[in-house]
Amino acid sequence: MNQERPLIAIDWGTSSLRGAHLGASGQVIESREFPRGILTVAPGQFEAVFHELFGDWMHAPGALCLISGMAGSRQGWQEAPYCLCPAGFAELGQHLLWLQPHRIALVPGLSCLGQDGLHTPDVMRGEEVQIFGALQLSGRDSATLVLPGTHSKWVQVHSGRVLQFQTFMTGEVFALMSQHSILGKSLDLTGAFDEAAFVQGVDQSQQAGSVLQRLFAVRTLGLFERLSAAALPGYLSGLLIGEELRSQAIPSHADPVILIGSPALTLRYTLALQHLGIACESHGAEATWTGLHALASQLTNKP
Amino acid sequence: MNQERPLIAIDWGTSSLRGAHLGASGQVIESREFPRGILTVAPGQFEAVFHELFGDWMHAPGALCLISGMAGSRQGWQEAPYCLCPAGFAELGQHLLWLQPHRIALVPGLSCLGQDGLHTPDVMRGEEVQIFGALQLSGRDSATLVLPGTHSKWVQVHSGRVLQFQTFMTGEVFALMSQHSILGKSLDLTGAFDEAAFVQGVDQSQQAGSVLQRLFAVRTLGLFERLSAAALPGYLSGLLIGEELRSQAIPSHADPVILIGSPALTLRYTLALQHLGIACESHGAEATWTGLHALASQLTNKP
Repeated sequence: MNQERPLIAIDWGTSSLRGAHLGASGQVIESREFPRGILTVAPGQFEAVFHELFGDWMHAPGALCLISGMAGSRQGWQEAPYCLCPAGFAELGQHLLWLQPHRIALVPGLSCLGQDGLHTPDVMRGEEVQIFGALQLSGRDSATLVLPGTHSKWVQVHSGRVLQFQTFMTGEVFALMSQHSILGKSLDLTGAFDEAAFVQGVDQSQQAGSVLQRLFAVRTLGLFERLSAAALPGYLSGLLIGEELRSQAIPSHADPVILIGSPALTLRYTLALQHLGIACESHGAEATWTGLHALASQLTNKP
Repeated sequence: MNQERPLIAIDWGTSSLRGAHLGASGQVIESREFPRGILTVAPGQFEAVFHELFGDWMHAPGALCLISGMAGSRQGWQEAPYCLCPAGFAELGQHLLWLQPHRIALVPGLSCLGQDGLHTPDVMRGEEVQIFGALQLSGRDSATLVLPGTHSKWVQVHSGRVLQFQTFMTGEVFALMSQHSILGKSLDLTGAFDEAAFVQGVDQSQQAGSVLQRLFAVRTLGLFERLSAAALPGYLSGLLIGEELRSQAIPSHADPVILIGSPALTLRYTLALQHLGIACESHGAEATWTGLHALASQLTNKP
C-alpha cells in the first residue's frame, strides 16, 4: 500500500452519509452527501448502499476506502470494537476492521475511562478522525479540542495521542428544552441568533449554583419581560454552552482551543471562549478528509 | 371573621384540583380530588367549575374559601400578583385577592430576586401555603425546605418569613431524558425503583464536572453493561436529585431539612440527604390543608 493510491474517504454517521474522493496529496477531487445515515439502512444492506452511492469511485485503480463514524457501531455495517485511550493514529491503524482486505476498512471509535470513582466509560465514533485531521491542519500534536453538536466532545490530546475525552449532552438538552419542555412556550425560535443574550447566558452559567436551576430562569426572565421571546433561545444556548466551559477550567494563557464543527456552532463556542478570555481556532468538515487521508498515509508500510 | 367558620381549602394546580372541607380546628371533614387542573378549564369557566365541584360545601353557614395554586396565575381564574420575598403569612393575608368579599379568595404566589448578578426572578404558586403548613406541623419558624416535583423548590425560611427560594427543573429534565432523549433507549422504566443505583447516581453527582456530561454516562454505563436497563432510571434520578443537593452545600450539622411532597418523591430525597449525612423530615398533602387553615386563622381580626 502506498500513499499514491486514491482514497475514498467516508464519514457514515447516524443521520447523514458523506464521502470524498481524494487525490494522492489529499486534495478533494469530488465530494457527495446523502441523507442515508445508518438509521436509514436496513441490516445487511450497508454494502449495497455503499456500492450504489460510491461504487464508481471504487473503480479507480488501487482505490482504498476508509469509513469512519457510526457505520462501525453495533447498529452499523459491522461492529469495529473501540480503541481504548490513550490512543493515537498508530492504534487506529492497527485496529482497522477490514471489510475487504486491502480495499475497504472501518475506522474504530475511541473509548476512555473517566477519572471519577466509577471510571465511567465514554465513547466516540467518527470524531477521532476529525481530531487527528484538525491537529494536522493546525500543525500541533497537543491540544484541547471541542467538537460541538448533539453530543459535544471535549478532548485532551498530548503528543499525538488522545488521553481523555468527555461527552456533554448540550445539543440534545437544548433541543429537548426548546421543543418539549415548559420553556418552549417562552421561546421564539424563528428569529436570528441573539449574540448579546447568548453572552449573558454564558456569564450566568459561570455563577455558583446548578444548571437545573438556571434553566428555569429562562422561563422567569420571559415571564417578567426581562428578555424577549426572540432573545431567550440565545440565552438558553449561552447557559448550556457556558455550563460545558465552566466544568473545564481552562487557563486563559493556555494554547488555543481547537474547535471542529459547523460554522454556526463553532461561532457560538468562539464567542463563549473569547468572552472568557480563552483563545481558539476553528475547523470544519475538511478535518474529516484530512484525518482519513493522514490515516491512509501512515498505512504505507502495512499489509 | 373568626376561626370557627368552616374553611373550604382548595389547591388548584396546573394538572389537578384538590379540595378539603375543614372543621374549626382544622380537621379534614371531607376531601376531594379531580383531574381538573387549570389547563382543563376554559377562560371564564373557573367559577362554574368551582361551584359544580365544591358548591355544596359553600352552603355551610359562614363558609370561607381560600384557593392556592395556579388558579391565581395569568392562565387561571384571575391573576393574583406575586408577593415579593421576604414574605410571611402576614403578607400573604394582606394580598389575598377576594373573588367574593369575605367568602372566596385567591392566595397569591411568591416571587423573589436571585442573588446572582442579574437578580434573576423566581416564582412559586401553591408551594407557599405548603411551606407555612409544614413549618406549623414541625413547630419551627426557620428552616430549609424542599418541595420536590416537576419543578423542585428549595426554600430558605427565617423567623417565619420566606427569604429566598430557587426552582430546579429536576422532575421535568428526568421526564424529558427518559422519554425523549437518546438515554430513553437504554432505560427500562417498568421495574421497581433501584435504591442502590440511585445512591450511586447521588455519589456521582457530587464529583467535579457537569451534569450535562454525567447524563451521557447513563448511556455508556448501559452500553458497557455496567448498570442494567432496570437500574438506570434510579441512577438517572440520583444524578439529577444529587445535582440539586450539590448546589446547596448544606452543612451536616444543620437542622433537619423539611421535605414536602408525595411519599415516592420525599423517599428519594430522604435517601439522598441521609447518604450525604443531612437530617430531614417529611410532610405530605396535609401541609396544604394546615397552611390554608393557619392562613384563615390569622384573618381573624381582618375585615
